[in-house]
Amino acid sequence: MAARRCDSALVTGANRGIGLELVRQLAEAPRPPSLIFAGCRDPAGPRAKDLKDLAEKHSNLVTIIRLDTSDPESIRQAAGEAGSRLAGRGLDLLINNAGVNTPGQLRDTGMKDMVDVFVTNTVGPLLVTKDFLPYLQRAASQPGSGVGVAGTTPLVINVSTLLSSMEKCPETFSMAPMYSYRASKAALNMLTRCLAEEFKKDGIVVTAIHPGWVKTDMGGPKAPVAVVDSAKGMLRVISTLTDKHSGMLLDWEGSSIPW
Amino acid sequence: MAARRCDSALVTGANRGIGLELVRQLAEAPRPPSLIFAGCRDPAGPRAKDLKDLAEKHSNLVTIIRLDTSDPESIRQAAGEAGSRLAGRGLDLLINNAGVNTPGQLRDTGMKDMVDVFVTNTVGPLLVTKDFLPYLQRAASQPGSGVGVAGTTPLVINVSTLLSSMEKCPETFSMAPMYSYRASKAALNMLTRCLAEEFKKDGIVVTAIHPGWVKTDMGGPKAPVAVVDSAKGMLRVISTLTDKHSGMLLDWEGSSIPW
Repeated sequence: MAARRCDSALVTGANRGIGLELVRQLAEAPRPPSLIFAGCRDPAGPRAKDLKDLAEKHSNLVTIIRLDTSDPESIRQAAGEAGSRLAGRGLDLLINNAGVNTPGQLRDTGMKDMVDVFVTNTVGPLLVTKDFLPYLQRAASQPGSGVGVAGTTPLVINVSTLLSSMEKCPETFSMAPMYSYRASKAALNMLTRCLAEEFKKDGIVVTAIHPGWVKTDMGGPKAPVAVVDSAKGMLRVISTLTDKHSGMLLDWEGSSIPW
Repeated sequence: MAARRCDSALVTGANRGIGLELVRQLAEAPRPPSLIFAGCRDPAGPRAKDLKDLAEKHSNLVTIIRLDTSDPESIRQAAGEAGSRLAGRGLDLLINNAGVNTPGQLRDTGMKDMVDVFVTNTVGPLLVTKDFLPYLQRAASQPGSGVGVAGTTPLVINVSTLLSSMEKCPETFSMAPMYSYRASKAALNMLTRCLAEEFKKDGIVVTAIHPGWVKTDMGGPKAPVAVVDSAKGMLRVISTLTDKHSGMLLDWEGSSIPW
């Protein structure tokens, strides 16, 4: 059976940084997915301008959908809209990229900060994955899908971070305490593990990826990795994933990161 | 310099299960702490009866304080009350035991469940530790304190679980999916790691302990470990902790659990 290619994708938090670059590189690939959903909290707002320009340039491929990952109702509506557009096809690739950060010194970390970051970085990806699951399952049941063959199995990618690694915490802590961010991403890693187990029966692979320390609004100007290189590396890693990588935390160059 | 003994302790969630048994065993030890704070959400409610009976029996040792770990204002007030009672002494032992669970199948897991469990199991311990930090620091500065000597260094114990282990998830998942609980405790482990790093300079040790699968309201009747044995094991492990164990996840018998 011929290998199936990635024909549909959703990237959340697609209006800037890594999300925007992932959409750009997906759209400008030699064989792009024919349906690229770019999730964005406020498509009408000023911060969505770059994404709108990109979607206009690739209007046959890129569809912007309103998707606020901190709002369950927004997620449900986005899934409904994507379902209509998919019109019976499955979703091959879901990249849970939307995320937030805060400075995160202990003295600055209170209830609101902890909960807000957790809602967007942890609960959001869980609810997006739940609501888009029927389309992922549909993709898994399509001819040519195979969990052992890279590029043919439906994938859920959770954008995590090196800072989620408990093992590495003693090395990374003094440079980046970030309590709320780290806690939310450690919890996201746990969800990645759980979903990987739960979706085995469906033939859906779930993998967490650390995009590197990237020169974005979130990563800051001192970050060593350019957005274009991070996205390129992530998409290369994504193209190699099989069931062996389900439930793992990899970096944008494909190396495994310990929990 | 003579080794200092544990003279003051706070146990949160002390009205039932493991928390209640920890307070009982602390109070009935051959050389009990002279001040045992038993934190309880609703000391006037019917679910606090066993704790009130215990506190009455050991009225010279046990002080019940109202402490709802999901409410920052309640935590602040409890810290103020404990501070008055400590009257210049430090706090030697803080056991963040209060926690909740829910069935946690994927289909039952939504925004509210994820956030409620995170608030009590993860944010609560962080805020309790922050608000009681001045008393832990005071204990660390008292004569006889030493981070390399078991039984003399101030300790923060976060009650975690084997189910928080990413490494062990493939073994434990099918028996206990518990998405919200696992996510909250993985996040708590991360906070344990961060606080262990942050408090190195203060000489305060922070360790996560898995109490075993215990026959409590939360663990259910099928659990293999009796409450009395879990608490006994935890207190024995606690008595051996030094700076070498800071930032680790141990079980109630002292074995290390991988992240």
